[in-house]
Parts: sequence; structure tokens; C-alpha cells
Amino acid sequence: MKKKYLMTPGPTPVCEKTLAAMTEPIIHHRHPEFQGILGEVREGLKELFQTKQEVLILCSSGTGAMEGSVVNTLSKGDRVIVVRAGKFGERWSEIGAAFGLEVENIDVPWGQAVDPAEVAKRLKDKPARAVMVQYTETSTGVVHPIKALADLTRGSDTLLFVDGVTGVGVAPIPFDEWGIDVLVTGSQKALMLPPGLAFACLSDKAWKAAETSNLPKYYFNFKKELKKIKDNSTNYTPAITLIIGLREMLARVRKTGFDNIYADNARMARAARAAVAALGLEMYAKAPSDAVTAALAPAGVNGQDVVKIMRDVHGIAIAGGQDQAKGKIFRIAHMGYISQWDLIGTIAALETTLAGLGYKFTAGAGVTACLAELQKS
Amino acid sequence: MKKKYLMTPGPTPVCEKTLAAMTEPIIHHRHPEFQGILGEVREGLKELFQTKQEVLILCSSGTGAMEGSVVNTLSKGDRVIVVRAGKFGERWSEIGAAFGLEVENIDVPWGQAVDPAEVAKRLKDKPARAVMVQYTETSTGVVHPIKALADLTRGSDTLLFVDGVTGVGVAPIPFDEWGIDVLVTGSQKALMLPPGLAFACLSDKAWKAAETSNLPKYYFNFKKELKKIKDNSTNYTPAITLIIGLREMLARVRKTGFDNIYADNARMARAARAAVAALGLEMYAKAPSDAVTAALAPAGVNGQDVVKIMRDVHGIAIAGGQDQAKGKIFRIAHMGYISQWDLIGTIAALETTLAGLGYKFTAGAGVTACLAELQKS
Repeated sequence: MKKKYLMTPGPTPVCEKTLAAMTEPIIHHRHPEFQGILGEVREGLKELFQTKQEVLILCSSGTGAMEGSVVNTLSKGDRVIVVRAGKFGERWSEIGAAFGLEVENIDVPWGQAVDPAEVAKRLKDKPARAVMVQYTETSTGVVHPIKALADLTRGSDTLLFVDGVTGVGVAPIPFDEWGIDVLVTGSQKALMLPPGLAFACLSDKAWKAAETSNLPKYYFNFKKELKKIKDNSTNYTPAITLIIGLREMLARVRKTGFDNIYADNARMARAARAAVAALGLEMYAKAPSDAVTAALAPAGVNGQDVVKIMRDVHGIAIAGGQDQAKGKIFRIAHMGYISQWDLIGTIAALETTLAGLGYKFTAGAGVTACLAELQKS
Repeated sequence: MKKKYLMTPGPTPVCEKTLAAMTEPIIHHRHPEFQGILGEVREGLKELFQTKQEVLILCSSGTGAMEGSVVNTLSKGDRVIVVRAGKFGERWSEIGAAFGLEVENIDVPWGQAVDPAEVAKRLKDKPARAVMVQYTETSTGVVHPIKALADLTRGSDTLLFVDGVTGVGVAPIPFDEWGIDVLVTGSQKALMLPPGLAFACLSDKAWKAAETSNLPKYYFNFKKELKKIKDNSTNYTPAITLIIGLREMLARVRKTGFDNIYADNARMARAARAAVAALGLEMYAKAPSDAVTAALAPAGVNGQDVVKIMRDVHGIAIAGGQDQAKGKIFRIAHMGYISQWDLIGTIAALETTLAGLGYKFTAGAGVTACLAELQKS
């Protein structure tokens, strides 16, 4: 009967109301009732993406939407610049290579954000068809300067691809205003749904590129999906229950107000960082995201031990580091259906865990600093 | 408060117990608890596919698994023979064309099954790397002679691809014994789950072909997925809730016994066909599947009107015809979580609908024949 907490940067907890909505009897995806649901969802997604474009709804994980973006807008041999600042930056790079693109990687040290000046320099050295980046690089907890990158590509022939899987719904990312060309996300993070849905939004420039794209595609055929979504439909059987959950979630979020949610995420992130500082720990992410806080484990403590004890003893799932960060860091999410009291509880369990591992700090410093920050606004 | 019935050949109804299982709090996909679930599911899927091979679990619709099968085992310019006997036969053909294969279509009149002798002749005329076919061609309700086709390809260099989206779980399809090379299915039909999961199983011959396949792939990378599934994991975030539903469903099905389920599906199909005959209607499918019964609408009656009245007046979703069959036929599913009494009720509503549309028949003939057939075994 031990209560469990999910504080990982994806999947995140799903609200009980959404879970209940998803238990309604299955309806057929060509039924008018489902078309009405898709119509409602379409409007909500446009608000979320802050765009006049359609947002495509795909039955896949976020990686599928990343692949779809590439194969629908680029052509064999196209030169692309990839910001490789962590595990997910690597993914853009791997997808590009798999489909025969000429990939130039900007290798940013893990834990740091890309410097827009570096991207500008590379683009000047040799033009590229696309720049690919994450909004939040989940593996390091870093947020990249998307607006500044869009300033470089807007009005040029270069497309800006943003993987917003950890990002859309966390903090504002005004697609039209900033001039992003491709933005993808998944259902299982700030959107507070189970995994299984992905979304993709394309600018006019990207849709124009889709006219000449020659990479092979079938399941992820965005032009075909665009035609269908305008009729409140999809090409292939959609993930019906997840879309019904999405309707429920979007309705609630619109009622709360996107700006209120963004403000609350920022507040939670400040509180998590305050706790990290008060415990004498160092942030791993030098440009921290509002979605997840990545901290270095203290000297002599293995980050994986922190994760394991939090999970097995305290029932709280947080994330460790991947690849080069494995054992060095731990990551705590604070987006979506995670409340301030969940965060306080997690910091309390973290204190208990670190103390047990022999790390010395002022008892209660973490929860005190976290609470003080939460109380400010 | 009108009760609704889903009698379409995908999606099909989901059992309340499965829906409830899917409302459990989300667990992380790298958590040992979820790995245990995947391990259990793997064993159940092997039983379902009657194979010693691993069954890959993909986050996509069945179409994604079809594409994945092609891009993982074939190479540019490979010659493939596609049985094109309906909407889903067309899909194999389109996928082949999209990825640069040399596609030869065997155009079988809709409503008929392919003649294995025709496939043998084509293979003899010019060898092909693959033969692609449906187990059930859902759009026409026809079942193709998979065992006879496997007899042609087994032991040769030709791979047999079977789209079993409507088929796996309906009737036996012993993958290893028949010597099928690629078998795919989806979650939303006989597997009694919401849509969103797809499955793919490859023979040793198909895995060998995967070693030299040069088609581009990333999201659907079967070799990478095979490595992962052996560790009870997946490459990308899986559709966690649907997999938890799958565990629940497979446990129930294994308890009931696959053979008992197949026998019951066959019995339901016989009863549906008996009703069609007793109402003086003609079967559209000349080699009818146990999953769905496709009948021609009587002269003077539009099949789409039957579907619309069944849905809007009687609350029962059945399917109409697609493309060339539109308006000519209607299709009633009887697989998965559809009981004999649901079928009787549907036949009763069909009688009411047809009478209302002016079709003349002996009142009660359909339900009487249906019930008599159900009572036989």
C-alpha cells in the first residue's frame, strides 16, 4: 500500500480525471462523435503551440514525430546543423544520418546550452537547410535559447527544427511569433497524458519544403495527415483513448490558463533550484529548464544510488544520468501534474537519502529553502 | 443514456477490466516493475503468435508495423509481389512504392481470396524477394489462404509478409509451423485493446534479410528493438498504459485458452453468416473471415443508409464499404470482446433497419437462424 510518486522528466503522472475519461467505451474513429472530439482537440493544440497552423496528431512516441519532421521536409544530401548537447541532440543527429543527410554536429558540453553565436558562425561558414535543437535537453536539464536561434533562421532558407517533447506546455514557445519552422512534442510530459501520442507543427516555410522533399515516407506522411486533420480525421487508426484523454486535459488547461501554468512551472523550478543550492549541491544544468532540475551528486555519492534509494525505499521515482552523466547526476521533474507539495515531499526524501549516504548538510535546509521560494509567489 | 455497441472490424470494444487496469498510476518504463510487465507480455505474445521468435512491441498503428517490416528486411529495388484484394492490399503496394521497391500487384477482385496458384505462377515467371498479403482483408471480409501461400515461400529466398491486423487472435496462425516470415498486428481488434500498439514477428529468414536491408529507418528499427526487448525494454518511450492493458488481456486470454477463443469466433462467424443467408442477403466475401461478416446490401438499399440508421437510431456501430464497395455492402464484426448476445442484438437491429428501408423478408428470420446456429455448439 506504499504510495508511489512519479517525479521523472517523462513519463509524468496522469490526473485521475483524465484516467477516468480514458475508460469511456471505445468509439470508432470515423464516428461523428470522435470527429467532434478531434475538432475540439485541434483548437486546443493551436492555442498550446500559439499558432495558426494545424498541429498534426501522430500515433507514435516523440521520436516518431522527430523522424516524420525530417523525412517530410528534407531531401537526400541536405546539410543540417545539429545542436548536440545531450542524449536527445544525438537523436536528431542519428535520424539525419539514417536518412542520408549531411549532418554537422555542434558538440556542446553536456550541462550547457548552445551559444547562438556558434550557430550563426556555422551557418555563415556554410549555409544549411536546417538547424536542429531541443527546447529542453531532457538528459541534462538544459533549456536552449530557441528565440535567439529563430532570430538566425527566420526569413532565411534555413529551417529551425525544435524537439519540444520536454518543453511544449512547460514554458511559452510561441511558434508563429518566434518563427519556428518545425516543433514536435509528445503526450507524456507537460501534457500530462500517458505516452503514445506525438504532435508536429510546421510553418509555411516548412510546408513549402515538404513540396520538394524526396526522402521516403509512408506512415509519417505529413501532407496526407494535414489533409485529414482538416476534416477532423487521421490517415490511420489513431490512439483513440489517448486523444479522449487529451481532450479532457486540454479543456482543463485552457480553463486554468496557459500563462498561469507556465508561471507555476517557473515557480516550482525556482523552488527546486533553491533546495539544491541550500543543500550545497551544484546544478548540472547551467541554463536550467523549468521542466526538470538536474543536480550533480555530491562528492563521494553515486547519483545512481540516490535514484535507487529514492525509488526503492521512499517510493519516489526520479531520474539518474544517462551515458556520460551516469552516476554523476540526478534529475527531478516538476512539470505537469506534479504539485508543490509533491516537490516538497521529494526534497524531504532527498534529504533523507543524502544523509543516509553520508553526505553532510544542515538538516532541513533543502525543504526550508524550497518552501520559502514557493511562498514568494 | 442510450447504450452504444461497437460492432466494427476495428476498433473493437475493450473489456471493462482492461479499461480499469489502464487507470493505474503511470509507472516509468525503465522501472523494474514495468520490465516485469514487459517480460510477462513477451511470453503471452509468443503464445499468441505460436512462435519461438520475439514479438516486437511498437508504439504505432498497424500501418507502422507494416512499414517497419518493409524497411527492415528489404532493399531498394527489391521485387515484391503484392496481393491486392482490397484497401489493405493497396497499403502494402503503396508502402512498397514509397520505399522504392519494384511492386508487382496481383489484382484480385474485391470480395475474393487470392488463388495460391496465381502467386505460384508469378513467382515462377520471375522470382520475388517477398510476397505480401493480408490474413483477413478487412475491407472485404475475406480471409486469404496463408498456409498455402507459406507452402510456396517456405524454404525459398522469398519472404512471406502477412498483415494480420485483423486475424491474429481471431483464428490460429501458427507462425513457426506454417513458416511465415513476417507477421504484424495491432492492438485494437482481436486483442481487445484501444488502438496505439502494433506488433511484429520475424522468422530467422527475415532476421537474416535484416542484416543486408539498406532501406532507411530510425523509429522502426527492428534490430535495435530486438536487442531491447530481450532486456524487457524498448528503444523509445512505449505506450505504457496500453501495455498494462495488454498484460491484463493476455492473462485472461491465456486462462480462457486460445483454442477456445478461436472456436468461439468461428461459431459467431457461422451464426452471422446464417443470419445473412436467412435474410436473403448475399455474402460479399466469398471466402469469409471469422473476424467480420461482409454482406451485400439488398437491391434498392444503400449500404451507407444501413450503417447510418444502425448507428444513429439504434446505437450500433457497424462498418460500411470503402472505395469501390462504398454503398454496396455493410460489415459486422464478431471478434474480441463481442458476445453472442451482442451479435443477436445487432442482427435484430439489422432486421429493424432493413424493414424500415423497405426490404422484404420474413420477420425474425435473421435472429432465428443466428440463434439456431449459436445453439449448435
